[in-house]
Formats: sequence, structure tokens, C-alpha cells
Amino acid sequence: MTKIGNMLIAQSGGPSSAINASITGAIARGMGSTKIRNVLGAVNGMQGFLDRKIINISDQMKTSEDFELLIHTPAHALGSSRYKIPKDDAETYGKIIQILKDYDIKYFFYNGGNDSMDTVNKLAAYLKKAGEDIVAVGIPKTIDNDLELTDHTPGFGSAARYVATSIAELYLDTCVYPLPAVTIVEIMGRNAGWLTAASALARETGLPAPHLIYLPEVDFDPEAFVKEVGTLLEREKQILITASEGLRLSDGKYLSDTGAAEDMFGHKTLGGAATVLEKLVKDNVDMPKLKTRAIQFSTLQRAAAHCASLTDLEESYQCGYRAVEAAVNGKTDIMITIARISDIPYVVRYDEGKLEEIANKEKKVPLSWITKGGTDVSEEMLVYLRPLVTGEAGEITREGLPKFFRFNLSKVVLPWEVK
Amino acid sequence: MTKIGNMLIAQSGGPSSAINASITGAIARGMGSTKIRNVLGAVNGMQGFLDRKIINISDQMKTSEDFELLIHTPAHALGSSRYKIPKDDAETYGKIIQILKDYDIKYFFYNGGNDSMDTVNKLAAYLKKAGEDIVAVGIPKTIDNDLELTDHTPGFGSAARYVATSIAELYLDTCVYPLPAVTIVEIMGRNAGWLTAASALARETGLPAPHLIYLPEVDFDPEAFVKEVGTLLEREKQILITASEGLRLSDGKYLSDTGAAEDMFGHKTLGGAATVLEKLVKDNVDMPKLKTRAIQFSTLQRAAAHCASLTDLEESYQCGYRAVEAAVNGKTDIMITIARISDIPYVVRYDEGKLEEIANKEKKVPLSWITKGGTDVSEEMLVYLRPLVTGEAGEITREGLPKFFRFNLSKVVLPWEVK
Repeated sequence: MTKIGNMLIAQSGGPSSAINASITGAIARGMGSTKIRNVLGAVNGMQGFLDRKIINISDQMKTSEDFELLIHTPAHALGSSRYKIPKDDAETYGKIIQILKDYDIKYFFYNGGNDSMDTVNKLAAYLKKAGEDIVAVGIPKTIDNDLELTDHTPGFGSAARYVATSIAELYLDTCVYPLPAVTIVEIMGRNAGWLTAASALARETGLPAPHLIYLPEVDFDPEAFVKEVGTLLEREKQILITASEGLRLSDGKYLSDTGAAEDMFGHKTLGGAATVLEKLVKDNVDMPKLKTRAIQFSTLQRAAAHCASLTDLEESYQCGYRAVEAAVNGKTDIMITIARISDIPYVVRYDEGKLEEIANKEKKVPLSWITKGGTDVSEEMLVYLRPLVTGEAGEITREGLPKFFRFNLSKVVLPWEVK
Repeated sequence: MTKIGNMLIAQSGGPSSAINASITGAIARGMGSTKIRNVLGAVNGMQGFLDRKIINISDQMKTSEDFELLIHTPAHALGSSRYKIPKDDAETYGKIIQILKDYDIKYFFYNGGNDSMDTVNKLAAYLKKAGEDIVAVGIPKTIDNDLELTDHTPGFGSAARYVATSIAELYLDTCVYPLPAVTIVEIMGRNAGWLTAASALARETGLPAPHLIYLPEVDFDPEAFVKEVGTLLEREKQILITASEGLRLSDGKYLSDTGAAEDMFGHKTLGGAATVLEKLVKDNVDMPKLKTRAIQFSTLQRAAAHCASLTDLEESYQCGYRAVEAAVNGKTDIMITIARISDIPYVVRYDEGKLEEIANKEKKVPLSWITKGGTDVSEEMLVYLRPLVTGEAGEITREGLPKFFRFNLSKVVLPWEVK
């Protein structure tokens, strides 16, 4: 059994609406544990940790309202980092271990995606090799939903709810004029199409949109696309298409790299897939008065906590809570996973997955769930998605505007202050 | 006093989240009036009316849930139209009067912005001249908040709430990495900056964003802009700027028309102000690792009913309700207006404004409410804005996804069916 000491949590990767629900769960469990003296946080992930930017969370979270607010605050409250530890960089891992010992940290938690799990995996191995009684546990997070071993990832359900809701609303908007219109909405997901697939849930509202769904798992065929749009326009006045930012041609080139998506300043536009599709329609679909529009959800889809899924926030909280529980029970080199027991009623169980089986891997949409020549998703996909967006979490508001919890990130602590 | 007959309502202009709350109020009052036999709706505004695309709303709204759902459904449920009746086109007005008589319509309501009020104004004049006992009343609607005589317009509060909430969330998103970043968010408003000004409410959440606010009421000065951004970056790591799509240079040219905003296909991009500002920063602000991003809220800002303001929906409903009340009391050639009695507590009164004083006019942001050399708004503006975004209306949801009410727009009725 591990000894009494401090715990430290850090966050990494891209933002989500639910990422702070996870650390809230971890903090709550940590502050309630007899094995944990102080709950510390590293600012800006592993990068900040290496710079000893460490704050004492136990000192900064005082009321139950603080916990409630943190759950509903989007985007890493502890900051993130793009820093990745170089491969087999024993020196850096040695430095990490030194800082852990300086601050008497016995429990280390990293909240992030595939890359972050790789970091935890390597750290755990180094700790074991060095004979340290320090455990390292991963807490999953990504709107991309591409982590292995877990049924789905914290953060995905809220992003999916935002996407489905917004697509339904946008479709109503495109329908108000009696004119033909093709609206193309670009959705995040470089290699995995889960979030774009979630746009299919917009149809649960009774609307026909999206009419076509393009995922990065299938090579994009421009000719087939133009034909599909033309055929659809013969029977539908307004068409809404969702497309993953990561669409690729059969030669492997990203659509956004095909040159057409270079902006007027000669540099590549961020996520230009929708713009390329819009150009394809403009150039090849001959229809009078046809209105085309490319819309990018941009970073809103990962930050719109006001549209969060309650199911997602609850599960995210549980993943953090259970990570601490597992760690104080001596577990290391694992990530908390969500296993689905049943779709209807929706029941999940929390498990532990070996980090080496998760690190650096990407779970893509199964090809059997992609239908109609790569333009739609199957009923299995909808059954999978439906429970994840249920429940309205909203934000905590005051006078109609959101309230957030923010740490004082500049109030760093020194080792002797938390001994 | 006008006689018993049918009422007809139509919608025009651009979409909003609250536009259907207004027709719900009108429909509810109409169905409850002893002077009104059937509540009819024209599909796609005046254009559809002239094509006799008329449906019987009384037949299509059956349950109290239908009314609840319609209130929360964004974008013209009856469709819109860009058609504007040619000036002094007696023939068209004659045709309109003929259709009104054919369908025994004694009460005509048009739900829209400045252009729509011009149409109602002219129609009312023609009706009077022709000696018809038919009244025409306007119901205000626009997210631009640019109608004269009314304190604010239905639809504005919800769009303002969406803008302020999303800006706050986006700012948190930009802060996660410890790198300098300039994010520019473009907001609708071609000539009036009200909605862009509403971004200032994001600061009520305790965040410093937006750091700079650019409205179309003030000539945009590129040099001053670059200087402002440079100065700000000396003390703030991440900056968020909001800019109206209608920004103009001192020569009157739209920023989006300056060529820089032409897209790679040689045609003007829709709403390119943010892109031009981003280029200005990229080209003129010298800072290592500076990340720039231009975001357009696009049509989401006018369709995001999931973020609607309850105050806005209630007032929108009241405007429709009172328009019918005024009409059955013989009023014509007026629009329902909202008069503010008090800011705190927030109290409004509904009035009637003469259409000739509203038609084709645009109420802009007073220059005295624009501060800091055209980069911010005053406390008066905040006092004005605050009550408009209060209350969370949300949407009616089922399994976490919105439910909408949709009319069967193809079920047109013939005159003898509603006599």
C-alpha cells in the first residue's frame, strides 16, 4: 500500500466542456481521502510541471459552489500544454521524478487524450524502474472520442450535443427562404469521424438534416459528392451537409491541403474542408439562384459549456473521482475507462485500462457503421450516440450570463509549504 | 369598429431565435378573440402571400405543447422572403387588397424589420385610401436592434445572450496554452453595432474579454488598431477582439470589400471583417509564436434558440399578442413598441409607434456610448444591455435534443374554406 502524501493533477491536449468536471471529481475524492494531504495542480500540463508551476488546489477551493462552478467551466482550468516529452528522454523523466519527490507527491494524475496517456504510461514505467512508491493514473478526455478501451470519452457527449443541436437550428435557418441552398458545416476530427457522425442526431428532432455526412474514415470522392448533391437538389430545396475537417482524397491528401483551401494570403486555412466542398458545389452544380455557405464551428464546439450534456459531465466527474480511488488503492499505469453495459436503459460501469493499450492509439469509426457509400451512418451508430447527449447540464448563470470558477494560477507553492 | 373576419400573419427579414415567440403571441390572442374567425398564415412573407400560399394556422395548432414548442423554435416557422414591393407599385398593393378580401382577412400582421415595416406602412395607406375596413399592424423583429421608437427589438436579447456567452467560453478556450494569441470574432450588424456591443457582457462573467470592441458606427482606423493590439499584448497574453461585420474605413469602404477579404476564388467572402483584422495583426504585430484566429459566428448567432433569453422570448410573445389586441381595437398603421420604464428593476411598457416613423430607418448606437477611441462601450450601454439577456429560455428537449414545432406549409387553403 502506498503511503500518505500529496496528489497532483495536470491537464493536457485540447479543450472540452467537460474537462473540468473530471478534475473536480478527482479533487473532491482527493480532498476526502485520508491518504492525501494536499491536492496540488500543475499549471499548463507537463510543461508547467517541469517549470515547477505548482498550485495548491486544496487552498483555492473553499465552498461547494466552487466545486459546482468548476464542473461547469469549459476549457482546462489548470491550463494545457502542447509539450510532448521526447522519446526515451530519461533525463526529463528523471527530472519529473525529482519534482514529484520534492513536493512529496505520491499520486500523479494526467487528464488528456492519446498523447497524454503516452506520457503517463512512460512515467509510470520510469517510476516502477526507479523503485519509487509513486503512482501515475490517466483520466481520459477528448471531444474526438478516439481513445481505445473506453466505450466513449469524457467531453465527447457535450461536443456531440452542441453539434447536433446547432445543426438542427442551422437547418431551420437555411429553410426560411424559398430558394435552393447548400450549407456545409465543418466539424472537428482530424482522423476519427465520431463528432461529425454525431451530427446525425440532429435528425432525431424530426428534421431531414444532415442530408449527407462525410467522415475521414472513408476516402472522399469529389465526383461522387457532386453527383450526390445534384441528385438531392432535385427533391430537396435546402441541403445541409456535415463534413469532418480531416477529409482526405484517395491519394491520402487532406482536402484542406488541396490548394483550393489556401487562403488569399497564400497560407493554408485552418480546417478548410467545408470551403473546398463549397467550391465543388459552386463550380459543378448548375442551378439558378443556388446559395452556398460554408460554416465552421471552430473552437465553439469544444468550449460551449452552455450546451453540455449532463450525462457527459456526470461521467467525466466519475472518471476523475475513480482515478483517485484507484490510485489510493495502489493502482498505477492505468486509465479509467467507461464500459457500456446496456444501451436502453443506458448503464455504464467504470473500469481500468492498461495505458500501453491506449497510448498513441486512435479508435476510428468502424467502417460497418458508415453507410450509403460513405455519406451516412448506421442505426448502430445512433444507438451508440443517443444516450451520450442526454440531460441538459447548462452553465451556472447569474443574470443570464455564465459564472465560472478560475484558479489563481500564479499563486505557486514551494515544496516546504505542502510537506 | 372593424367587423368579424379572419386574421393573417406573415414573417419577413432575417431569422431570429425569438421570431416565432412573436407569432405564437399573435396566434394565441387571435384564436382567443371573438372578432377573429380563423388565424391564417402566409408562407414566405409577402411573396408567398401574393402567390396565395396561405395556410390555416387555427387548424394546425392543436395542443398547448404546440404553442410551447413554437415559442422555442428558431427561424421563421412561416418562412421568410427577400421580396420588397416596388415603390408606389399600386398594382401590387391592389392585388394584395384583393387577396385580403378574397380570404375575408380583416386583420393583417407582418413580423419583421425596417423593410417589413415599410411594407405594412404602405399597405395601411393603400387600405385607407381604398376605404377598406382592414387593418395592418407591424410586429417588430430583428437581432440588429436597429428599429426606431422601440427601446429594443424582439430577437436581440437572445442573440446578445448567445454572443456574450460564446465570447466568454471562447476566451477560456484561447487561454489554455501559455502562448500569445489574438482571436478576432466577427459579429452580425451591417450598419448598427448593437449586437457587437453586446459582446461586452462577456466581462460580467469576470473575464477580461473582449479586450477591444469595434462597431460600424466609428470609422475603422487600421493603424490605430495595430497599435492597440501591440500595446495590449505587452500586458495580456491572450486577447479577444470583437468586430462588427460592417466595419468601414474612413473612405466609407467596407473592410470586407478591401480586397484582402476576397477569397481564393476571387469572389468576396461573406463577412470578411475578422479575416482582414487577422491579416492586419499577422502582418504588423511582431511577436514570436503569436497565434491568430478569426472566428465567424455565422448564422448560429441568430438561430441558437438553445441559448435564448427568457426576457426576450416573453417580450417577443407580448409584442405579437398586443399587436392583435391593438388591431381588434381598430388600430392600424402602427407597430408595437417596447418602452423601458426602469432599468433596475427592469420594467417595460408596450406602446404603439407610427409606422412612418419606423419604416426604412436605422437606429444606430449613440456615439456617446462608444468609448476609448472607438474600442469599447460605456457603462450606459451595459446598463441598457444587462436586463435583455436575463433568464434562460432553453429549448424544449427530448432525450437531450431540441423539439420544434413545424407548420405543414404545403397545406394551403382556398378562400371558401375559411369564409
